Amino acid sequence: MKPFEWKQDTQTLIFVDQRALPSLEYVTCTKLEDVLGAIKNMVVRGAPAIAAAGIYGLALHAKELLRTEQKNLTKFIPELKSAATRLKETRPTAINLSIVLDNVLGGVSKLQNADKVLPYILREAELLIEEDLRINFAIAENGLSLIKDNFAILTHCHTGGLAVASGMYGTAQGIIKLAFEKRLNIKVFATETRPYLQGRITAFELAKDNVNITIITDNAIGILMYRKIIDCVILGADRVLNTGHVFNKIGTYTLAVIANYHQIPFYVALPISTFDFKNNLEDITIEERNQNEVRFCGNQQIVPNNVPVLNPAFDITPPELITALICEKGVLYPPFKRSITALRDSI
Amino acid sequence: MKPFEWKQDTQTLIFVDQRALPSLEYVTCTKLEDVLGAIKNMVVRGAPAIAAAGIYGLALHAKELLRTEQKNLTKFIPELKSAATRLKETRPTAINLSIVLDNVLGGVSKLQNADKVLPYILREAELLIEEDLRINFAIAENGLSLIKDNFAILTHCHTGGLAVASGMYGTAQGIIKLAFEKRLNIKVFATETRPYLQGRITAFELAKDNVNITIITDNAIGILMYRKIIDCVILGADRVLNTGHVFNKIGTYTLAVIANYHQIPFYVALPISTFDFKNNLEDITIEERNQNEVRFCGNQQIVPNNVPVLNPAFDITPPELITALICEKGVLYPPFKRSITALRDSI
Repeated sequence: MKPFEWKQDTQTLIFVDQRALPSLEYVTCTKLEDVLGAIKNMVVRGAPAIAAAGIYGLALHAKELLRTEQKNLTKFIPELKSAATRLKETRPTAINLSIVLDNVLGGVSKLQNADKVLPYILREAELLIEEDLRINFAIAENGLSLIKDNFAILTHCHTGGLAVASGMYGTAQGIIKLAFEKRLNIKVFATETRPYLQGRITAFELAKDNVNITIITDNAIGILMYRKIIDCVILGADRVLNTGHVFNKIGTYTLAVIANYHQIPFYVALPISTFDFKNNLEDITIEERNQNEVRFCGNQQIVPNNVPVLNPAFDITPPELITALICEKGVLYPPFKRSITALRDSI
Repeated sequence: MKPFEWKQDTQTLIFVDQRALPSLEYVTCTKLEDVLGAIKNMVVRGAPAIAAAGIYGLALHAKELLRTEQKNLTKFIPELKSAATRLKETRPTAINLSIVLDNVLGGVSKLQNADKVLPYILREAELLIEEDLRINFAIAENGLSLIKDNFAILTHCHTGGLAVASGMYGTAQGIIKLAFEKRLNIKVFATETRPYLQGRITAFELAKDNVNITIITDNAIGILMYRKIIDCVILGADRVLNTGHVFNKIGTYTLAVIANYHQIPFYVALPISTFDFKNNLEDITIEERNQNEVRFCGNQQIVPNNVPVLNPAFDITPPELITALICEKGVLYPPFKRSITALRDSI
């Protein structure tokens, strides 16, 4: 299942509404504003998936400009730049969206006439999706070397097909999926991942693939490790710095500390596009999301109106808690400053 | 607000339905089965509160026996014993319920005629509630010595008035309440505590008391400590062994490991009735609750039917992660085996 599909005939983008899963619902986007809303409201999520969705947002805006503006490239490009800025602001912590939008804008600025803009952007989206699949499969193959038969693997949030552009494999979950396809006997525990409950999506996808999966609350990670049930933790990332600091879904840091305490390997799987080779720790904004995501649980109001909620969407895991980073080029080990720099210099 | 009230005129027990909070709803119990259901389904929860509720369950059964059976003590007592066994089985991990029921049964067995049974049981419940208030206040006073001005305190689950027999102070939350009453400038962070979301009740009570409280997801405990926002953790217990092992709400162990990693004091507040001086670690059952508590979040089904859920209600925190135990007799420090034994020998 793909997180979204571009309909060439109607020039619309149709998302699987990930908020409704395991129930299957769709959201149709005909203009930039629709895509901004879909990303902001987490109809689509997962760093690689929102990056590709962002390109289609740009495409929808180009379509609109072609209809309403003069076909004038000098007017066109600032408009697309401002659309890209709005797209980047929807989810500031994940880096992939920002990088791919800058790449596409760079390409657009070299075009000679306005008619070429929309086909160019759509082609870039397709290329990204194709590349995404190759990358995900390479991550899965590299990660497979770390998984042994009869492993119980703990994962957090969702990193499967619906979190990436291609709808196939995913990042951390791709390793699990490939291990299962290679007939390793593995058992997966997935946290429900409050507040957005991405464990829903992990359960939905892995159950479809017939992987042995059990859902736990985020509170149960400790007792599972205490009982020596877990052999390793594998999860994804939204941004990884040169230093090896991992920005990922809230709760990742908690998991890393407990895994460290129990000497359980803690693996982070990511495409190279998730590395941020430029910025420092203090440069990164941790997105603070709407209080209502926590104030309500389903239809039940759990926090009274006069009590504030703190709802950071991500946290930071420092390199000393990470056993290895798994990307499409291989497995990186500490010291990460050295191995990440070597990776950067090799690409 | 009290967790329940005994109505002498109608001889019924009326609970605040803690599942519905912050919305106020009530559940009326007229017979033992109603109380068994109320405890099992968590209409009432909190180790000291369910202990007192259990005595009223016994009272309702005695009332029924008086109406239906011959007033024959030799028939009466085995019936009450079997009722006590059923009550104990509702929530096996907390120790208080089991201890108070055994005490009441011991007293009943010394009575000379059946007419004295119901008044005796009701009087025992009242005495327990009165004693509970004295104990809670003493815990609060002892804990106060550990709280400094401008502290940010993290708590988990709910340990306030509705979790204890008297409806006043509570255990860990009583320390927070007293610190606020003594005009210490404190800030409280409370986890929502999936799956049952007891943070609802903590927020409801502390907001009523005008304490500065913020709710976070269970996943956010790590980032708060990483950001050095938290000065200490205080929470309750359902059972504490001679060795200092603490059985408490699922997620407690996770919190203890992270607090330890950040060298943040980790305090457990409890009445002496929560100590289990007899049993060993392997003797204690950790209650596994219904999968639907996790499968559904409010009205939303989050886990597909074909995916299993693991839902332990409690976990075990070993003594090496605990800074101090706070009870009505004072503050106990490591080595806990020695300080708990000394406490036992002093009572």
